[in-house]
Amino acid sequence: MEIISFRNNSLSLLDQRKLPHKEEYVKCKTYSAVSSAIKTMVVRGAPAISVAAAYGYALGALAGKENQACNSLLSSRPTAVDLANALNFMRANRTRKSPVALAREWESSVYEKCRKLGLHGAKLIRKNSKILTHCNTGPLAVGKYGTALGVIAAAHKSGKKPFVWVKETRPRFQGALTSWELGKMRIPHKAIADSAAASLMARGEVDLVILGADRICRNGDFANKIGTYDLAVLAHAHKIPFYVAAPSSTLDSRLKSGNSIRIEHRDEKEVLELSGRRIYAKGTHALNPAFDVTPHTLVTAYITENGIFRSPDALWKSMKA
Amino acid sequence: MEIISFRNNSLSLLDQRKLPHKEEYVKCKTYSAVSSAIKTMVVRGAPAISVAAAYGYALGALAGKENQACNSLLSSRPTAVDLANALNFMRANRTRKSPVALAREWESSVYEKCRKLGLHGAKLIRKNSKILTHCNTGPLAVGKYGTALGVIAAAHKSGKKPFVWVKETRPRFQGALTSWELGKMRIPHKAIADSAAASLMARGEVDLVILGADRICRNGDFANKIGTYDLAVLAHAHKIPFYVAAPSSTLDSRLKSGNSIRIEHRDEKEVLELSGRRIYAKGTHALNPAFDVTPHTLVTAYITENGIFRSPDALWKSMKA
Repeated sequence: MEIISFRNNSLSLLDQRKLPHKEEYVKCKTYSAVSSAIKTMVVRGAPAISVAAAYGYALGALAGKENQACNSLLSSRPTAVDLANALNFMRANRTRKSPVALAREWESSVYEKCRKLGLHGAKLIRKNSKILTHCNTGPLAVGKYGTALGVIAAAHKSGKKPFVWVKETRPRFQGALTSWELGKMRIPHKAIADSAAASLMARGEVDLVILGADRICRNGDFANKIGTYDLAVLAHAHKIPFYVAAPSSTLDSRLKSGNSIRIEHRDEKEVLELSGRRIYAKGTHALNPAFDVTPHTLVTAYITENGIFRSPDALWKSMKA
Repeated sequence: MEIISFRNNSLSLLDQRKLPHKEEYVKCKTYSAVSSAIKTMVVRGAPAISVAAAYGYALGALAGKENQACNSLLSSRPTAVDLANALNFMRANRTRKSPVALAREWESSVYEKCRKLGLHGAKLIRKNSKILTHCNTGPLAVGKYGTALGVIAAAHKSGKKPFVWVKETRPRFQGALTSWELGKMRIPHKAIADSAAASLMARGEVDLVILGADRICRNGDFANKIGTYDLAVLAHAHKIPFYVAAPSSTLDSRLKSGNSIRIEHRDEKEVLELSGRRIYAKGTHALNPAFDVTPHTLVTAYITENGIFRSPDALWKSMKA
């Protein structure tokens, strides 16, 4: 199944809002259609967003609207750095290749990074491990392979028989996407409410936690889906390894620490409504931070396409090599 | 608004499954109707269940079916000890009063305990405190006053202007009931997804955590709604006071520690479906523990009708006094 494809100057995106019930595609022929698809979460996951944005930029360039495309795409989701990295790549290389060829180059490089990342990370997983994951980091979040789920998939392919606890990931239930992907890959798993994670840890039912990142700072602090920081604190308290799997495009050298990360707050309706039906009394409001920041001190290791890194220093050194 | 009332040999229960949208009542004229109302969560919250069970027992006794009523009610919800305590009270005192008069006596004693508990607990709350709570512990969970929410209500009444972060409490969204109650009491509050709690703590937005208990063991370990243990670990990690508010009927002297607590697992559909609509792909299963166990080491203080207790020993000594 193709998640992202570009043909005849049209970007086709598997509509993640319809999954797992329907497998439908949204077609984007302009940069603003791509921006809107990112904003409304037709496509989500930092690497997948970057691939969509690269093609969005290409569509803008073809229409002679590079700057407008860039601004529109940049503002579509604020937290993931991959998006900005994709646009920087497109701008920096515009004299070298046609916009569409450049976007294809970006896409291939994202997939290749995630393929390597999966193979590195699989080394950390022992046979019959019970793995807890959060949000969606599979092929849907990248376009191909996945990040944290790519690691699990690589471990599964090599015969390690992992079992996965899937946190539902309120408020948007990305756990349903993860379950759908695990089902397609025939990897055993069970869904849990987010707040069931700690009791599973206490009962010895979690051997390791692995999840993705939207933005990693110079000191190793990182932003990821709301609920990541909880898990990091809980894993630390239960002495369970806590791994972050992300391509190096997620590293943001401009940010010194997590304090500098701007956190996206989304519409309170995501918390207050279920499929358009309000579950709270009239007059109730909600706070809906889409991400949280996890300090580097709680990370056991970072996994990128360059290998496994047990400290932020080692992680950043790998970027210079 | 009456939450539980008994007239003309009929128990009337405000149907909590319909809230906050509809205020409807379920009428129970037999013990088995009461059992079924407890099982299906028409009525929930340990003290409220105990009041309903006392009247259920009375209905059984009136029909000459005391033993059947007792067995049926005991098996309706396994985790809360108040239910068993109510039935023990009814049996132990059956020669003293009519069954209905005994049930009224139990009901009054539950409300009076919660009224006192609220006044004690309010002393722990400073002016303008930002309070995080979990699940529903207000009048709905008791029949009147509430436990943890009763403490907040008492603090509000005394002019301390508390603000409340309401965890939604997946999978059943009891946070919607808590918001409804806070709205009726005009106490400022906002709902959050369960996994947003930790980032609020990290940002200094939580001054204290207060919640209820379904069963407290001899060593102070306690069972409460799934997600309680997470919060206890998170509060500890952030050096935030963690208070447990429960009437003394929640203490279970037969249980040495949390290891002996039997945890109720509920239907996986509570996790997999939203108002009857499946959100996961076919073939996905879920684990749905309804409660978790929090060790006494994470509790700052227990609040009962007898006062504030900073250790399990002090708590249990207050029972003997």
